[in-house]
Amino acid sequence: MAETATRNQPDQTRAFAALCQLLGDRFTTAEALREQHGRGEAYHAPHLPDAVAFAESTEEVSRIVRICAEHAIPVVPFGVGTSLEGHVAAVRGGISLDLGHMSRVLAVHAEDLDVTVEAGVTRKQLNAHLRDTGLFFPIDPGADATIGGMAATRASGTNAVRYGTMRENVLGLTVVLADGRIIRTGGRARKSAAGYDLTRLFVGSEGTLGVITEITLKLYGIPEAISAAVCSFGSVDDAVRAVIQTIQAGIPVARIELLDELQMQGCIQYSKLEGYPAAPTLFYEFHGSEAGVKEQAEQAMAIAEDCGAEGFQWATRPEDRNRLWQARHDAYYAGLSLRPGAKSWVTDVCVPISALAECIHATREDVAQAGLLAPIVGHVGDGNFHLQMLVDPASPEEMAKAAALNKRLVRRAIAMGGTCTGEHGVGMGKMDSLAEEAGEAIEVMAAIKRTLDPLNILNPGKVVRV
Amino acid sequence: MAETATRNQPDQTRAFAALCQLLGDRFTTAEALREQHGRGEAYHAPHLPDAVAFAESTEEVSRIVRICAEHAIPVVPFGVGTSLEGHVAAVRGGISLDLGHMSRVLAVHAEDLDVTVEAGVTRKQLNAHLRDTGLFFPIDPGADATIGGMAATRASGTNAVRYGTMRENVLGLTVVLADGRIIRTGGRARKSAAGYDLTRLFVGSEGTLGVITEITLKLYGIPEAISAAVCSFGSVDDAVRAVIQTIQAGIPVARIELLDELQMQGCIQYSKLEGYPAAPTLFYEFHGSEAGVKEQAEQAMAIAEDCGAEGFQWATRPEDRNRLWQARHDAYYAGLSLRPGAKSWVTDVCVPISALAECIHATREDVAQAGLLAPIVGHVGDGNFHLQMLVDPASPEEMAKAAALNKRLVRRAIAMGGTCTGEHGVGMGKMDSLAEEAGEAIEVMAAIKRTLDPLNILNPGKVVRV
Repeated sequence: MAETATRNQPDQTRAFAALCQLLGDRFTTAEALREQHGRGEAYHAPHLPDAVAFAESTEEVSRIVRICAEHAIPVVPFGVGTSLEGHVAAVRGGISLDLGHMSRVLAVHAEDLDVTVEAGVTRKQLNAHLRDTGLFFPIDPGADATIGGMAATRASGTNAVRYGTMRENVLGLTVVLADGRIIRTGGRARKSAAGYDLTRLFVGSEGTLGVITEITLKLYGIPEAISAAVCSFGSVDDAVRAVIQTIQAGIPVARIELLDELQMQGCIQYSKLEGYPAAPTLFYEFHGSEAGVKEQAEQAMAIAEDCGAEGFQWATRPEDRNRLWQARHDAYYAGLSLRPGAKSWVTDVCVPISALAECIHATREDVAQAGLLAPIVGHVGDGNFHLQMLVDPASPEEMAKAAALNKRLVRRAIAMGGTCTGEHGVGMGKMDSLAEEAGEAIEVMAAIKRTLDPLNILNPGKVVRV
Repeated sequence: MAETATRNQPDQTRAFAALCQLLGDRFTTAEALREQHGRGEAYHAPHLPDAVAFAESTEEVSRIVRICAEHAIPVVPFGVGTSLEGHVAAVRGGISLDLGHMSRVLAVHAEDLDVTVEAGVTRKQLNAHLRDTGLFFPIDPGADATIGGMAATRASGTNAVRYGTMRENVLGLTVVLADGRIIRTGGRARKSAAGYDLTRLFVGSEGTLGVITEITLKLYGIPEAISAAVCSFGSVDDAVRAVIQTIQAGIPVARIELLDELQMQGCIQYSKLEGYPAAPTLFYEFHGSEAGVKEQAEQAMAIAEDCGAEGFQWATRPEDRNRLWQARHDAYYAGLSLRPGAKSWVTDVCVPISALAECIHATREDVAQAGLLAPIVGHVGDGNFHLQMLVDPASPEEMAKAAALNKRLVRRAIAMGGTCTGEHGVGMGKMDSLAEEAGEAIEVMAAIKRTLDPLNILNPGKVVRV
C-alpha cells in the first residue's frame, strides 16, 4: 500500500481541467481561497490545497471524487474551517472540497424528533430553522461549525453531559466513498440491529473514509423550563469536587462547565462579563419541567455550597442566559486575548470523572513548571477539559515546551483510563497520541482505511498512518 | 475471496488435536453438547458445530482462534444461546466457542458509573453483583443473555427508550481478531474523538469480525423512585396513539411497552396475571425523584385517558413491579404457550414513531389475511415491535406463509424509513433483509468483513455474504 497518493503534474492538470469543466467558477486555484481553506483555527502551520472545489449536491460530490480518484488527487473535505487539530490542512496538496454551499435543511420530521440536513448547514442555522417547531439540536462546539464537520469530527460541546455527542445523535448519513459511490447508512429508526454500524464508523472518521454529504440527526423538545447558575470557588480542586459529586449523585444537569481563574479573567475582559470574579467558576444549566429544574438546581447548589462555592448568580431570563453561554462559547477567543499576537495550541483530553481532579491538578502544576500561559476550560461533567496553550509559533523553544506538555497531558490521561482527545479529534496533531492510546487496534484502523480508500486520497496524512 | 472457509478433514483433525491439547476436557465433540450449541431459541433449523470449546480467558480465546485460523476452521462464539435469528448455528461446521466460563466481573468503578466484565457474565448476574452499590445496568433483552452476546448483537430491551441500547452503553471492548491478535477498543472515558469508532463497529457485528471477550459498560444509579402502571385500550390503534403522544411530549418514560390482546391472553395464562383483561395493554415505568416520577406518571396517564385508556392499575411495591415485568420478559414463552408444540418465528422491525400505528395496523391485517397466529409485543417507545409467528416447522405451507409475511413486514418497515430489525439482529435469518435495507452500503460491510476476517472463519454465513 502506497503511503502517499501517487500523482504527477500531467495527472493534476487533467483532473483540474475536468473539475473546471464540471464546476465552472466553483472550481478555483485563486491564492486567497486556497489560503482560507488551508488551515483551521489552531496553531498548526497551514498547508494550502492546490485548488478549491465548491460542491452543491451529493451527486456533484460523487463526480468530483470520481475525477480525483481517477487521477489520484487528494480530497480534503471542508466545512467552515473551525477544526483545531489541522484536520483541513492539505498536507499532500490536492483539492479542498468545500461543502458550504450544501446548506439546505432537507426534511424536518417534528413528530419523530429528527431532521435531515446537507453537510454545509451550520448548527446555528439549523437551530434558527427549527425555531418555530419547539425543537432544538443540542450539540454545540464553541464555533458555529457545519453539521457535516461536526459529524466528521464526532463533535460535542457543553450539552453533551445530558444529550450526548455526535456519536449518539446522528441517526443516518449519506456518504460519498473514495471511488465516488454514494451510500446511505442508518436511517430514521431510533434503534437498529441491522448489520455493521457504518454510521458510527464514518462519524469521527474526519473525512478519511468518505465524504459525509447529508446527515439525519435526533432533535429534542425545547425544555419547558431552563435555568442557569454561576458560582465561584476558592480553588479549581473544590470546583471539580463539586462536579464529581453532582454527576455521581445522578443530577441530570444539562451543562456543567469549569473555567479556571485565568480563563475567567479572559472572559471577563473579552465578553464584558462584569460582576463575576476572576476565580475558578462553574457554569450550570438545568433543563426540565418547572418543578424538575427547581429540584435539580437546589440539589446541585447544595453540593456546590458543601464544596465552598460562593457568589451564586442566577440567570433565568433568556437574554441573561444567552449572554452567559455566548461568553462560554467565546472562551477560545477570550483565551487568545490574554496574550495578543499569540497562537492557540489547544489540546483536550477526557478521563473517568473520578480522575478529573487529579488530572487537572497535575496539569496545572505542569503548566506552571513549564512557564506557559494556558487557561483551562472544560465540559467537566464528561471528564473532558481543554488546555489552551498560548504560544508564539516563531519561538521554537515555546513550541517545544508546548509539544512536551501536550505529550505529558495525553499520557497522563491515557494512564488514568482516559483518551487523548475528548472532542477535538486527531487530525494531524494527535496521530502519535492516537497510536499510543489504541495500541494494536491502530492496525485495525489502518486496515479499514486501506480498504475503504485504497489510493489514500481522502484527507491523507490524518488520523492514522497507512 | 473464498465464499467458504476451505478446510479438509486432515486440517480439522490436526486442529482438534491442538485444541484438545490446549483445553483438555474443555474441548469436546460430544453429541449432546454439540446439539445444545447448534441453535438459538427461534425457528431456525439447528446446525451442529463439529466440536465445542470452552474458553476461560481472553488469552485462551486468542490461542483457540489462532489454531482455528491456521487450519481454516470456523469459530462460532456462543454465550447462552438465546439469540433469535440463528446467530449461533454452525452453518459451516467448525467449533462453537463457548464463553460461558468467562463469568467474572472484573472491576466495578462505582464512582465513575462503569463496570468491566468478561463476556460470559449474564445481565442478571451483573445486576446481582451490583446490588450493594446502588447502581444497575438497564439493558434487558427478555432472556438472561450474556453481556458478550448482548454486545455482539447490539441488544436492547424494555429500558432502551430511556437508557439506550448496547450501542450507547458499551464504553470499551477487548476483542480477539480473526488471526488471534488481541485488541482493546474505547476505554473508560465517557466520550472520545480518538480515531475510528471500533467499539461500535464490533458491537452488533454478531461475532463475524472478532470475538468479544471483555466489555466495559456504563452503569446508572438506581432511581430514587420507581412506579409502574398498566392500562388497557379498546384497540391497538388507541394504545399506539397514546405511546406516540407520550414520546412526542418528551415525557422521559423509562419503559413503555405494548402487548396486543393475543399477547395479553398468553401472558395472563402463562404468568398468572390475574385481574388484567385480554385487551391491548400498555405497561409503563417511570424513574426519577419522588416528585419527578409523580409528575411523569400524571402526564402520561392524562394522555392515555385522552386516548381511551381504562382500568389503570399501579404497581409501586417492588414485588408487584417485578411480577409485572417478569411477565413482560416472559412474553416470548407466553406467546409460545398459545399454540403448544409450535415453534416461534419471531421477527422484529423498528420504524419512526409517527409511522408506528400504521405499521402495526397494516401488519395485523396482514397476519389475519395470512391466517397465522402471531401475537405482537413491542418496545413501542422506540418504534420497535415484535411479531411472534407461531408455526409448525413441519408444515412447508405455514413456513412459506410466515416467510412471505416476514418479508412484507420488513419491506413495510423499510419503506417507512425504518429498519429490518430493531434489536434481534441479522444472523442467518435476515441477511436478505439487510441487503435490501443497506443497498450499496452492504458492499462496504462485506469489504470490512473480508479485511478483518480474510479466511471467513468468524461465524461464517451470517450478517453479510462475502
